[in-house]
Amino acid sequence: MIPTPQLDGDHLWASLEKISAFGATPAGGLHRLAASAEDGAARDYLVAEAKALGCSVRVDALGNTFVRRAGSAADAPAILIGSHLDSQPMAGKYDGTYGVVAGLEVLRTLEEGDIATAHPVEVVCWTNEEGARFAPAMMGSAFFAGRFTAEELLECRDTDGARLGESLASIGYAGTDLVSSAEHHCYLELHIEQGPLQQDEGLPIGVVTAVQGMAWFHIALRGQAGHSGTYPMERRRDAMASAAQLVTRVQAIGLQHPFVGRATVGRLDVTPSSPNVIPGRVELMVEFRHPEAPGLATMCAELAAACIDLEASTGVEITLEQVLDSPTVRFNAHLADTVETAAQKSSLTSRRMISGAGHDACQVAPRMPTAMIFIPCEQGISHAEDEAITPEWAHAGAQVLLQATLLADETMFSSDESPTHREIVGK
Amino acid sequence: MIPTPQLDGDHLWASLEKISAFGATPAGGLHRLAASAEDGAARDYLVAEAKALGCSVRVDALGNTFVRRAGSAADAPAILIGSHLDSQPMAGKYDGTYGVVAGLEVLRTLEEGDIATAHPVEVVCWTNEEGARFAPAMMGSAFFAGRFTAEELLECRDTDGARLGESLASIGYAGTDLVSSAEHHCYLELHIEQGPLQQDEGLPIGVVTAVQGMAWFHIALRGQAGHSGTYPMERRRDAMASAAQLVTRVQAIGLQHPFVGRATVGRLDVTPSSPNVIPGRVELMVEFRHPEAPGLATMCAELAAACIDLEASTGVEITLEQVLDSPTVRFNAHLADTVETAAQKSSLTSRRMISGAGHDACQVAPRMPTAMIFIPCEQGISHAEDEAITPEWAHAGAQVLLQATLLADETMFSSDESPTHREIVGK
Repeated sequence: MIPTPQLDGDHLWASLEKISAFGATPAGGLHRLAASAEDGAARDYLVAEAKALGCSVRVDALGNTFVRRAGSAADAPAILIGSHLDSQPMAGKYDGTYGVVAGLEVLRTLEEGDIATAHPVEVVCWTNEEGARFAPAMMGSAFFAGRFTAEELLECRDTDGARLGESLASIGYAGTDLVSSAEHHCYLELHIEQGPLQQDEGLPIGVVTAVQGMAWFHIALRGQAGHSGTYPMERRRDAMASAAQLVTRVQAIGLQHPFVGRATVGRLDVTPSSPNVIPGRVELMVEFRHPEAPGLATMCAELAAACIDLEASTGVEITLEQVLDSPTVRFNAHLADTVETAAQKSSLTSRRMISGAGHDACQVAPRMPTAMIFIPCEQGISHAEDEAITPEWAHAGAQVLLQATLLADETMFSSDESPTHREIVGK
Repeated sequence: MIPTPQLDGDHLWASLEKISAFGATPAGGLHRLAASAEDGAARDYLVAEAKALGCSVRVDALGNTFVRRAGSAADAPAILIGSHLDSQPMAGKYDGTYGVVAGLEVLRTLEEGDIATAHPVEVVCWTNEEGARFAPAMMGSAFFAGRFTAEELLECRDTDGARLGESLASIGYAGTDLVSSAEHHCYLELHIEQGPLQQDEGLPIGVVTAVQGMAWFHIALRGQAGHSGTYPMERRRDAMASAAQLVTRVQAIGLQHPFVGRATVGRLDVTPSSPNVIPGRVELMVEFRHPEAPGLATMCAELAAACIDLEASTGVEITLEQVLDSPTVRFNAHLADTVETAAQKSSLTSRRMISGAGHDACQVAPRMPTAMIFIPCEQGISHAEDEAITPEWAHAGAQVLLQATLLADETMFSSDESPTHREIVGK
């Protein structure tokens, strides 16, 4: 029996530190917007390291950057490993970057250990996962999955009016390589959890079986503005008072699905917004998430019913518009089994879990067997400069990624396990 | 017995229409900011009409414009009648203007009827009651009451940087006359209700005995921002969810004082304000009003208790700061009786009521016996272009003002009935 190769945790941590120099913030975070100079420098680092390991490099029209170590079997499809190098503004060093760097270290371990795989192993850095500079999010992986043409995406502009196409060209990543999902055997993405569960449970490995579904609603409440001193409360149609009841109802709807339901009112805007004027209008956004389609549908139906009740009881007119419908994405069950086995072989505890956030893997999933691996992060904090992981957590996840890659190299996946192509929008 | 003189309702209505030309909006409203060219033109109209009636004119350092018809008794203090000619932006034609024009028509009725009064009768247009262009509100009357010096107020700037002093000079109303409250016998202000009660009750005359007290609180709720998809609801400290409970509690506090309590959350700002981020911070303003000091104090105490409860139950930190404390202003009881008698003599139904809004009379009240007369307005709408009254309502109010002036001319008021000087801030 061949002993399992061991990924070098110290080298992984050093690589993470090196690539974090490109866009480092004084407070120890990362500010590396998509197609910025910092993004270019981080990609250059990835490409240089991969070339030093003998990998070939391809860049497609969206700037998705693929580095490939050849396999031993002729024409075998590649095992794809990926994530992203762009960040939210003033964010953390590990969201996305960890998955790409761990993939690079898998290639290094294979090359330096002189380990041949039948399938090529290819690491991809997807362009603009965050959607912070150019909308929509998960752009590179969505292009790869065939959801958009390059032409329409390259015309996207940031708030300063810069086009994505020109921005990619300016950093040297406006590529011309045609990379098809048909060339790939499966897709693995390693990521920080961005939630608190794994740290709480002391769980080093999360085997992600699905990404929860999501629905966004824009709600407008129209009451009657008026003088706060002269208008009796009994006669008011106060849009803020009604909105407060609705927010409380949204919370209750979420809590009716303990630990799996998510209900958030993240935006709420009051008009005219003066201390002594009864609000005539409130607009707010409700977001629901649930791992199961029936659960999400129940939450949405309860919201609609709550709006009708509230309109009747307060006299404030309420309009409800669903602006985002992102169904649950199920990953490949066979590949999830493979990840679970890889954790066992690495003597690491794991359990199956649902991702609360969207990832590039959601875009790739309809095109090939896909799974994700999660590691803990401190207090679940992410999209913030104090996002943090430990070297031990980082090492454990990368070792499981290596092990899963080797297991996948020996596995034929059933495509029946893949979800059908779905409209998956937003993050 | 001398028959009661009758004020000409048609002439009053025509005068209202004429003065509304200065700052008229296409939708039939009024846009006449303090010390603007339109304000100057409206004052010029008042002065010209008053001079034609033989009145003398004085303008003080704040631009307060006094037109006086002499009395028959040597050195008798004047009966002061007033309100304001400035408006909120894109507002209505009657708020303030009605009281000034009705005062002018009282002077006209006396002069044309050759009716001598023992006391002089003086009509004043106070500068900048609204506070829309220059803060604070009720500026001219506050200066008259001795709360501010002219120097400090004339330095106030609008959002374009224009000083009040220069703006008054540019329209010809930077006066030098010294006008003291010691020269006055009493103060009467006629105004639209700006609420719906009188129209609902078919009540032509409101005898205003007090202006309700007011308290403003700035409340900050600090929870923990986080990813709306990954963070379980059971673990959140969602500032928006807590704020919603607080808004509902504020409503309940108001409704515990039926028909007299007013509780409003007119502003509420969410941070970071993104649909998929749990709000980490909410700031909001609570306004309470109540006609009785103990009632207002109870409301304030209930709010403080609600914040403590909510902090304990949600883990969201709450800070509460009172930013405005404007106690109840009680008008002179004897002068209110006089207004009530004037309504009876005019065969008009009246009842005593509390003003929900602040008025120049609040500033004047500590200096001399003061009372207000209200007439209805359509649906309680004010500070809006569709503010409206009927010619009948306008006529009734002005007739009562005339009658009250004649009664006041025969009355000695006890200064014991006046409130002590109080800090009355805001509107």
